[in-house]
Amino acid sequence: MRYYFDWAATAPYQYKADNIEQETRQNDFIAHAFEEKAFFANPSSLHEEGRIAKAALEEARKRAADLLDVQPEQLYWTSGASESNAIVLFSLPLKNSAARGLLFGAAEHPSIRENAAVLNKLGIQTAQVPTESYGAPCVKTLQKSLKKHPETALITIMHVNNETGAIAPIEELVRSARNTAKRPLHFHADMVQSPGKTPFSLKEFDVDSASFSAHKTGGPRGVGLLYLKKPLIPLVSGGGQERGIRSGTENPLGALKFCAALEDSLKKTAEKDPCAGEAAAQALFKGLLSIERCVIVPQERCAEDKRFSPYIVQAAFKGIAGETLCRMLDDAGFAASTGSACSSAEKKRPVLEAMGVDSKTAFEAIRLSTGWSTSISDVEALLDALRNICAVI
Amino acid sequence: MRYYFDWAATAPYQYKADNIEQETRQNDFIAHAFEEKAFFANPSSLHEEGRIAKAALEEARKRAADLLDVQPEQLYWTSGASESNAIVLFSLPLKNSAARGLLFGAAEHPSIRENAAVLNKLGIQTAQVPTESYGAPCVKTLQKSLKKHPETALITIMHVNNETGAIAPIEELVRSARNTAKRPLHFHADMVQSPGKTPFSLKEFDVDSASFSAHKTGGPRGVGLLYLKKPLIPLVSGGGQERGIRSGTENPLGALKFCAALEDSLKKTAEKDPCAGEAAAQALFKGLLSIERCVIVPQERCAEDKRFSPYIVQAAFKGIAGETLCRMLDDAGFAASTGSACSSAEKKRPVLEAMGVDSKTAFEAIRLSTGWSTSISDVEALLDALRNICAVI
Repeated sequence: MRYYFDWAATAPYQYKADNIEQETRQNDFIAHAFEEKAFFANPSSLHEEGRIAKAALEEARKRAADLLDVQPEQLYWTSGASESNAIVLFSLPLKNSAARGLLFGAAEHPSIRENAAVLNKLGIQTAQVPTESYGAPCVKTLQKSLKKHPETALITIMHVNNETGAIAPIEELVRSARNTAKRPLHFHADMVQSPGKTPFSLKEFDVDSASFSAHKTGGPRGVGLLYLKKPLIPLVSGGGQERGIRSGTENPLGALKFCAALEDSLKKTAEKDPCAGEAAAQALFKGLLSIERCVIVPQERCAEDKRFSPYIVQAAFKGIAGETLCRMLDDAGFAASTGSACSSAEKKRPVLEAMGVDSKTAFEAIRLSTGWSTSISDVEALLDALRNICAVI
Repeated sequence: MRYYFDWAATAPYQYKADNIEQETRQNDFIAHAFEEKAFFANPSSLHEEGRIAKAALEEARKRAADLLDVQPEQLYWTSGASESNAIVLFSLPLKNSAARGLLFGAAEHPSIRENAAVLNKLGIQTAQVPTESYGAPCVKTLQKSLKKHPETALITIMHVNNETGAIAPIEELVRSARNTAKRPLHFHADMVQSPGKTPFSLKEFDVDSASFSAHKTGGPRGVGLLYLKKPLIPLVSGGGQERGIRSGTENPLGALKFCAALEDSLKKTAEKDPCAGEAAAQALFKGLLSIERCVIVPQERCAEDKRFSPYIVQAAFKGIAGETLCRMLDDAGFAASTGSACSSAEKKRPVLEAMGVDSKTAFEAIRLSTGWSTSISDVEALLDALRNICAVI
C-alpha cells in the first residue's frame, strides 16, 4: 500500500481522462474522426483528416475556455507550463521599447527564476519583488519595486506557491501595479497550482497572461495552456501554429484529455467531500500542529488560514533533516518531497530563503501536498507514520 | 474509404504504440510501476513513485539510443522536433565567442528558417546555403558559404527534405565543413523525416546534433528527441530536467511510446514488403510518370533516384492549381497536401523557390507522401483518381 502526498509535483493520473476517446465519440463530428482513425492527423493539414483533428483541437480550446471563463481565442496550447512561462518571459528581448525590464516574485518557480537570470545575460534588466514572510509579495512591496524600476515592462507573480501553498493577492497586485505605473504593463501569473487548489477568476484577476499545466490536475504530460488577454510576439518562431504563439504540431488528444482532467478536478474539489479533499487537507494541518516536534513553515500560518491553499503544507520536524524524513516516509509507504520536484537535485531552498526562514528550519522542512481524492484515513496513516518516526529519531 | 498520402505531415498513429503499457509490464521493474499506478509520478521526485517514473524514462532513453546507435546520455527528450531545433539554434545568443553566426540550408523547415530570422533580430549573423536544383546543398556550395562567412559557429542542414524527399549528403557535408573551417563548428541536422524514409547513421554522419519527432513515425504528439554529441548551453532554463538541456516535467509514457513507434517503423520499413512501403512508393512514382500532365518536381528526379527518399514525391499537374487538386483529391477520398503542414496557411513555396522551380510549376505542385503501410492498391486507387481529375479539368 502506497500513499501519495506529492500532488504539487504531479497529480495522480485521472483514469477518467483515458476515457476521453470514448466520451468524445458522443460528439458527432469528432466521432467521425475515430471511425476514420483520422483523429491523429496534423491539425494544420487542409484535408478532411486534418480538418477533423483541427476541429478536435478547437473543441478542446472551447471546453478549456468555458472551464476558465475566458474566450477560446485567448488560449494557446503549449507543451506545458514551463513553456508557457518561457513564451511570456522571452517576449522581452524582442520588445521594441525602452522599458523592457522584468520584475519577478522572489518565491517563483525555477521556470521563472532561472529564466530571469538568462534574460539578464541578454541585456534585460531584472529585479525581484520581495515576498512577505508568509510567502507571497504584498501590494506595498510591489509598488515600491515598481517605483524603483521604472524600466519594468513585465511583472510575473505566482498565484499559489508550489512549495508553501501561499496565495498571492493577484487581483490587488494587478490593480495596484496598473495604478502605480500609469502606463501599459504586462502582468503574468504562474497559475499552475491554482486549479482545484483555490478559487480564481482570470477575468477578475485582470492578468495579461497566465500559465497552466495538464499534469498538475491529473491530465497527461506534455500539455499546457497559455492564457493571453491579447496576443504577444514570442521569441521562438516556426510553423506558425497556435496563431504564431507556439509553433510545433498540435496535440488534439492531449488537449481534450487536459480538459477532461481539469473539469473533473474542479468538479471533485467543489463537491466538498466531508471525508476527503479539503477536509483531509485540514485534518492534516491540525494533525501536524499536534505533533510536538513539528513546526509549520511559515510558523505564522494557522489552521484555515485564508492566505494559503489548504492542499500544500510545508512543515519542519526539529532535529530531522527534511531529506532524511522524506526517505523514511518513503520507506514507510508515503510519497512526499522536500520542495519542488523541478529543483530536487539542488540542496538549496531559495523559496524558503526568500521568506526569511532560517537555514536550520529550511533544512528540516518537507512539503506535504494533497488533492481531491486524498482521504482523511490517508491523512491519519501519514500522521501515524510521522509520529512513529519522531518517536525513534 | 479514405486513403492517406500525407505521411510527411504526420504518420498514421500506430495502434501498437497504445499497447506499450501492456508491453512494458513485461519489464519487471516497470511492471511494478503499473501495479502501483506510480508510472505517472514526476520523474524528478525522489520518492519511490518518482524513481519508478525516472526508471521508465531512462529505459526509454536506452531503447531510443539502441535504435539510433548512440549513447543514452547523448539523447534528450523534448516536446517535439520544433523544440529540438530551437534548443540548438537559440544556443547561439548565449555563445561566448566572436564567431557565433548561423549558416542554414535554403530549403529548411520553418522551425529553422523562421528562427534564423529571429536570431538575426537578436544580432546573430545568419546566411543561407543555396540548394542544388534537386533540393539539397552540395559540398561545394557549403564550402563557398563557409569561406564567405567566417563568423559561422553553427551549420544546420535538413537530412530528408519534408517537401521533396531530397536527401542532403550529410556525411560529406559535415566532413567537408570541418576540413574547410579548420576550427570547431557545430553541425546540426533536422532528421525528422529520416527514420523509416532512408537509412542513416548518426555516428557515420558525425553530426553534433540532430532532431527527431515521435509523431512522424507513428508515435504520440508532444514527444521529440534531441541528439547532442556533447552537451550545449540552452537559452531557455528552468527546473533543470534532462540535464539542464530541456526543463519541464518529463513524459515517461510518451517516451516509451516514441520508442515503440520508432522500432516498429524501422522494422516494418526494413521488411521490404513487395506489396507495400518502398514498393508502393516506387509504383506511385512510375505511375505519376505515366500521367501526361504530371511533371515531377524537380523534373530531373527519375525513378529510383538515390538522391531522394522514395516516400516523398512532389509533382505538378499542368493547368491545375495544387490547392485545387488537393481539394479534389480530398473530395475523392485522398489526403494529400501542397507542402509542409507547418506552412499550409501561407501561399508561398519557399522550398521550391530555393530550388529554382518556376512560379507556375510551384503553384501547381502537390506533395504525395507514403509510408510502410501504404499498399500498391492504395497507390493504384490514387493514380486512378488523379487520371480521373485530369480527364475532367
